[in-house]
Amino acid sequence: MRVMIDISYDGSQFEGFASQPHGRTVADNLGEVLNRIYKQKVNLYGSSRTDSKVSAKTQYIVFDPPFEIKPDNIVRAINAIAPKSIYCKSAQLVADRYMPRHNVEYKTYKYTITSEYAPIYRHIEYYVRQQLDVEKMQIGANYLIGTHDFGSFCSANTDIEDKVRTITKLSVEAVNNRVVITVSGDGFLYNMVRIIVGTLIEFGLGKADPHSMNQILEAKDRSKAYATAPAHGLMLEYIQLEGQND
Amino acid sequence: MRVMIDISYDGSQFEGFASQPHGRTVADNLGEVLNRIYKQKVNLYGSSRTDSKVSAKTQYIVFDPPFEIKPDNIVRAINAIAPKSIYCKSAQLVADRYMPRHNVEYKTYKYTITSEYAPIYRHIEYYVRQQLDVEKMQIGANYLIGTHDFGSFCSANTDIEDKVRTITKLSVEAVNNRVVITVSGDGFLYNMVRIIVGTLIEFGLGKADPHSMNQILEAKDRSKAYATAPAHGLMLEYIQLEGQND
Repeated sequence: MRVMIDISYDGSQFEGFASQPHGRTVADNLGEVLNRIYKQKVNLYGSSRTDSKVSAKTQYIVFDPPFEIKPDNIVRAINAIAPKSIYCKSAQLVADRYMPRHNVEYKTYKYTITSEYAPIYRHIEYYVRQQLDVEKMQIGANYLIGTHDFGSFCSANTDIEDKVRTITKLSVEAVNNRVVITVSGDGFLYNMVRIIVGTLIEFGLGKADPHSMNQILEAKDRSKAYATAPAHGLMLEYIQLEGQND
Repeated sequence: MRVMIDISYDGSQFEGFASQPHGRTVADNLGEVLNRIYKQKVNLYGSSRTDSKVSAKTQYIVFDPPFEIKPDNIVRAINAIAPKSIYCKSAQLVADRYMPRHNVEYKTYKYTITSEYAPIYRHIEYYVRQQLDVEKMQIGANYLIGTHDFGSFCSANTDIEDKVRTITKLSVEAVNNRVVITVSGDGFLYNMVRIIVGTLIEFGLGKADPHSMNQILEAKDRSKAYATAPAHGLMLEYIQLEGQND
């Protein structure tokens, strides 16, 4: 028996999603919650790793419960025990070996930049005092849409060999005093969205020519792109699973 | 010499704006910051009291500095010392006896209700699972626009005698999975916005007839209105000072 839950979380309270030697992670916390509910160790598997301080509106997680609890009651039990920074939205039974991580059709991330710092949004928005030229950012962004080797947009700290990914959407919009960057794709390399955002910001500030994005992409070299934008502006907004959440 | 600063703050970190016997307040914190900058006790006076857990995008505060520091440097000094939950947006010199509290032309509050709970927004939005009928809420809201005795919308815990206030705007809008209530007026009684919101929610849920708002208003009796909505959905959005921020 395998159960899949959909959770959202406030990344500002955690050192990322996946378990790691140091710091409190979402997976650690949720694991403890499941251990308490089932009164034994329950292993869990997520659909997406998010970095330290990155929040998520959706994250699919599967686990094999040692005994049956109705999905609605699993949701209630998790929300009764979990800290307020984690919220379970739904639970459902899935096929025995189903792994959401291997069944992601596409994911959408949103990155928010504000030119008006407000303490209440400090865990959600990246503050850039200067006005950004959204049109220039979009010109640069357009070069990345499609299937490419994103080697220039991948942290050097990775063992991944195949850096070909498909971006289906990459939009840059001005909304009040904010610039919102939305990116959808079949998968993302380590720090890929944050490096893309950091590079688009350089175009928006007028410090780099947006058409240079083509050369940056072609180089397949991390050092050709610009600084990684900070984690707290990033939100994992949506995950479309194959044949699941239709 | 009198200085006026404009600050914003994350109300989730404080027990309201004004100093009080128990709990950490915005005024206490900011007072300590000014004491450190000027190396002596500096009294400060705000333009608006906000309740515990209520955030503000704007709050005007005046104080009489014992010696001159340029406005830009006051801003920098405050932001260097203050916790991240308080941010100083600007500073300016004002007339010696100027009190922003006595010069408010109008204030705007925003209240946000969400039907989709997300941990990252839990300090900003009030979660109401049921769908709210925005049109019914607006019908009820329309009765309050204008100059009225708002005795039905004032906490019983107040000594204020004159409960006549003018509401110039009261809108209820659906935005994605949220309902946003925006209210502007020349002044607000204790808990007034939150009682208005709590009453509009009853209309939105279909539990009360929105046209009953007329009788609730006429009664001038707190017990005729509905429950006070929770503080964390409320934001002090804007303050228009007479002859100041044009």
